[in-house]
Amino acid sequence: MAPRTVILDCDPGTDDAVALLLALASPEEIALEAITVVGGNVGLERTVSNALALVDLAGAGVPVFAGAARPLLGAFVNETRVHGESGLRGAELPPPSRVAAAGIAADRLRAILRDAAPRSVTLVAIGPLTNLALAFATEPACLSAIREIAIMGGAIALGNVTPAAEFNIYNDPEAAGIVFASGAPITLVPLDLTHQALATAVRIEAIRAAGTRAARTVAGILSAFPPSVKFEGKGFPVHDPCAVAWLIRPDLMSGKTCHVAIDTTQGPSRGRTVIDWWGTKRAPNATVLNRLDADGLFALLAERLARLP
Amino acid sequence: MAPRTVILDCDPGTDDAVALLLALASPEEIALEAITVVGGNVGLERTVSNALALVDLAGAGVPVFAGAARPLLGAFVNETRVHGESGLRGAELPPPSRVAAAGIAADRLRAILRDAAPRSVTLVAIGPLTNLALAFATEPACLSAIREIAIMGGAIALGNVTPAAEFNIYNDPEAAGIVFASGAPITLVPLDLTHQALATAVRIEAIRAAGTRAARTVAGILSAFPPSVKFEGKGFPVHDPCAVAWLIRPDLMSGKTCHVAIDTTQGPSRGRTVIDWWGTKRAPNATVLNRLDADGLFALLAERLARLP
Amino acid sequence: MAPRTVILDCDPGTDDAVALLLALASPEEIALEAITVVGGNVGLERTVSNALALVDLAGAGVPVFAGAARPLLGAFVNETRVHGESGLRGAELPPPSRVAAAGIAADRLRAILRDAAPRSVTLVAIGPLTNLALAFATEPACLSAIREIAIMGGAIALGNVTPAAEFNIYNDPEAAGIVFASGAPITLVPLDLTHQALATAVRIEAIRAAGTRAARTVAGILSAFPPSVKFEGKGFPVHDPCAVAWLIRPDLMSGKTCHVAIDTTQGPSRGRTVIDWWGTKRAPNATVLNRLDADGLFALLAERLARLP
Amino acid sequence: MAPRTVILDCDPGTDDAVALLLALASPEEIALEAITVVGGNVGLERTVSNALALVDLAGAGVPVFAGAARPLLGAFVNETRVHGESGLRGAELPPPSRVAAAGIAADRLRAILRDAAPRSVTLVAIGPLTNLALAFATEPACLSAIREIAIMGGAIALGNVTPAAEFNIYNDPEAAGIVFASGAPITLVPLDLTHQALATAVRIEAIRAAGTRAARTVAGILSAFPPSVKFEGKGFPVHDPCAVAWLIRPDLMSGKTCHVAIDTTQGPSRGRTVIDWWGTKRAPNATVLNRLDADGLFALLAERLARLP
Repeated sequence: MAPRTVILDCDPGTDDAVALLLALASPEEIALEAITVVGGNVGLERTVSNALALVDLAGAGVPVFAGAARPLLGAFVNETRVHGESGLRGAELPPPSRVAAAGIAADRLRAILRDAAPRSVTLVAIGPLTNLALAFATEPACLSAIREIAIMGGAIALGNVTPAAEFNIYNDPEAAGIVFASGAPITLVPLDLTHQALATAVRIEAIRAAGTRAARTVAGILSAFPPSVKFEGKGFPVHDPCAVAWLIRPDLMSGKTCHVAIDTTQGPSRGRTVIDWWGTKRAPNATVLNRLDADGLFALLAERLARLP
Repeated sequence: MAPRTVILDCDPGTDDAVALLLALASPEEIALEAITVVGGNVGLERTVSNALALVDLAGAGVPVFAGAARPLLGAFVNETRVHGESGLRGAELPPPSRVAAAGIAADRLRAILRDAAPRSVTLVAIGPLTNLALAFATEPACLSAIREIAIMGGAIALGNVTPAAEFNIYNDPEAAGIVFASGAPITLVPLDLTHQALATAVRIEAIRAAGTRAARTVAGILSAFPPSVKFEGKGFPVHDPCAVAWLIRPDLMSGKTCHVAIDTTQGPSRGRTVIDWWGTKRAPNATVLNRLDADGLFALLAERLARLP
Repeated sequence: MAPRTVILDCDPGTDDAVALLLALASPEEIALEAITVVGGNVGLERTVSNALALVDLAGAGVPVFAGAARPLLGAFVNETRVHGESGLRGAELPPPSRVAAAGIAADRLRAILRDAAPRSVTLVAIGPLTNLALAFATEPACLSAIREIAIMGGAIALGNVTPAAEFNIYNDPEAAGIVFASGAPITLVPLDLTHQALATAVRIEAIRAAGTRAARTVAGILSAFPPSVKFEGKGFPVHDPCAVAWLIRPDLMSGKTCHVAIDTTQGPSRGRTVIDWWGTKRAPNATVLNRLDADGLFALLAERLARLP
Repeated sequence: MAPRTVILDCDPGTDDAVALLLALASPEEIALEAITVVGGNVGLERTVSNALALVDLAGAGVPVFAGAARPLLGAFVNETRVHGESGLRGAELPPPSRVAAAGIAADRLRAILRDAAPRSVTLVAIGPLTNLALAFATEPACLSAIREIAIMGGAIALGNVTPAAEFNIYNDPEAAGIVFASGAPITLVPLDLTHQALATAVRIEAIRAAGTRAARTVAGILSAFPPSVKFEGKGFPVHDPCAVAWLIRPDLMSGKTCHVAIDTTQGPSRGRTVIDWWGTKRAPNATVLNRLDADGLFALLAERLARLP
């Protein structure tokens, strides 16, 4: 089977870095056409620089496009508490050899979609959804070229940045509202799934043992995750690679189709993905995944990172 | 140990009925001073009449006080879909022998609290929180007499009446907001716990085997619960008795203290209990229970219902 | 014509003081049965004490009942910036000779209404609407005894405490929501009218010239109003007496019936009276007054204050 | 003085039509570089076609770019009740001789701004602000080229499409939120000003007497405005031309600088421009105009429409 044409929208970000490397290491399944970058885990300048450095690390040449530095409305919030000031806590990468490609992320998204066959392009979105929202709202005709949007974000149960909301959606709820109302086919990878993807010591060592520089870098990142009482000391969850892995090994995950609304109020649930899991209220607009074969995921990571430099 | 002085605020309601009978069957632990009634699962006229009929069934004489027929703000919503038009689907009770006591529920709540020693009265609230909110807002001095408020309501994960909200809280979010901001010690029994209290066929038969009229009535109610895909055919959850059981056998449940905010917006999360389970944001105002020994609960039900007529 | 039975709900407050004295000076039109007090312009302890001192000043014996110290939801906000720390900036009154009557304001409201003939009691509400809301929500049967509720609050155009909201409504929007949804006949006296009631130097002197202690006290209060750019140096508006004057000289004001909704969101319009002046959307629930004969109002004030001690 | 470089963003729309013709008739002041079109008063297909037909009517060649057909979030609402199904009730124009220019409105906005000198381009926005919001959010660097944005929209007092909100802002509150938070210099022309621009019979006849086809078309449009009780039979307000007239004859209007927030809640004030007229709360982000020399405006209209074919 030919690889899918993919655009990866990201804000690296430690787990974004792992996701990005997994995508670059999987050319049989993923033909990565562009990396579009958004401010999120850290500011845009850092996320762009980090994306470029990761492409270097993988020895790849995929163009990187800078996008939105801040959400459509409201103040920008970052997650340096988790990802470090650099956005890549635990990794030490040389400065990127190249600069970002000319053009704005949303424009590049639109151009790729505009020129593509119907339902032929897959988007993987693992940061705030600002770039996608701007592309879709500016040029809705692009939507027909989308095969699938795999989004890491949201939660069925508890959020992480607030009790109600997950970071990527909370960072720009209005953008998420645009994307989920777009009619494009969405697969949502929420915290309920990614919290099963715990980077345990054993799993980190298995990755390190893959021996490549990419594998060692990932192992370094995973080792630097802050300890958390949430997971009983078993490890820290690796969110973003799950959305990439869905394109490579969909058999590792399962869930169901249902309606997802986005809370754009100013109240305590702002940024929540309101997931109608029992399907009683509204027609589905997404497939929400909630089960993961975590061992399978980490085995995939180790196997693929072994292929990179 | 002397029994606790208890006021039960309810909207029977099928699972309210089970909770009410459990309370009346447990005089060693629960000295039931009054039953205050609110509109909720069905309209107030029905919930009052049902409460009176259940007191008759138990051969008890506890006074029943009618309270709020509708929420502080917004339209009244019922749950006849679950509880039947009568509110007691599956039960056939004779008309009550008595009428409601003179006076309004919130006034009776206040009077009992006003005359009680500090931290001596336990409230069990298993319907919309309108009566409690009116009592507390009108006479905040009453709050010091409260030992504990055990509330069935809310959800850590998914709601039942909307994807975000559970019925009791959704029915009157502003009242819930008042109660959770009151400073009174709250124990919350959310859906995440009560969904473990499944009325399986085996458990229903064990209750029926207790042989009393009360037990047969409860078995009839539990047998009439609508089938639900949510619980994989294993049975339907029995929410409200969990809050009463907490007073009798606290060893059957566990959880943790954390902050609970109530979503009073007009958005898709209206009525949600925003539970800061990981305790990162605000000082705790409640103990939220999430684990249940379900076999222990149903054994308690069967044992206690055997004591009633 | 016999005087109306009236309950005055207030938070004195400088303009409340003027309103209260106007009511006490007008026995032909106003049979003042009780003064119920709410926290608002200053804290409840002060507003109660001020109400008692004003009753003394008028040589009257109307009972004063303390009510809600804070709004149903959210934090209490005062207006000491306008009314001074004492709540009666510009007045120096001896400590009250009596204490508040036994009982809670909302209870007294209910008791008076419960015992009254249908549509026979007029409420004048010139503070946050918490007391009324608690009375109505606890005992809706009381509503049938209400002839009219004259409310000073809200705005058709700009607010005063925020760009969208007037102080009395902003202080407890949920309470206002309850009152405006109650079905009782409401006459709203918003800022758009009261901003015509400017206490100019000439008008203040005319009041002072009435010569009584009450008149001198009012002149002192009006003279101490902070200067405001809003009114081009012509004077400061005297809000609350307009609602009392409506009962005495309705010919001084006019407006129209329309629907008034209350904004209870957490957004920038929280506490706004959303007034459907052009009547296109919803059935009327209030008469909203927007025109005032200001000279007539101040002449009435001078005339009536001359009658007090 | 050289004419300003101007982009007109509109949704014609009857009063948009008058505004557009006024701009095209005023080359001394307005160098109209592009007309960008948004769905609003009627659907996008109609607003684009109407804009093209109006350019024909003026014998002009300004390119017309189609933009957003719907708001960022929420359902599209139109105003065919006011503007007729065609959007140009009262006008009968031949089908346009040309089609819209290639490209999307927001892109053309960005391109003009990107290539312009700092603070050199004036935007006049007389429809929903979706096109501007998309341009600004996608490419914030463009903002520095903006000299001024003159916006017809919002209200200090009452709205028109709801009691709280004016149509252009209500149609896309999130877009308005983006524009008002952009930091660009904004001049807001709200209903409070435009309601002074009443198309009375005398004023309509003065325009008709200008004798040109453009003048007759405008007179036809103004004559077809629906009668309204709001303006005591004196005529119907002509909103949009006021924003264009501001560029030609700023002496006809006045107001003050203040902060304008946009209500993006789901409550009854959704779409309101919350205008801090008294400047007590936040730093100004706009100049809000509230006074108009209406005779001057209509004299300008007649004079300028006489210049067109």
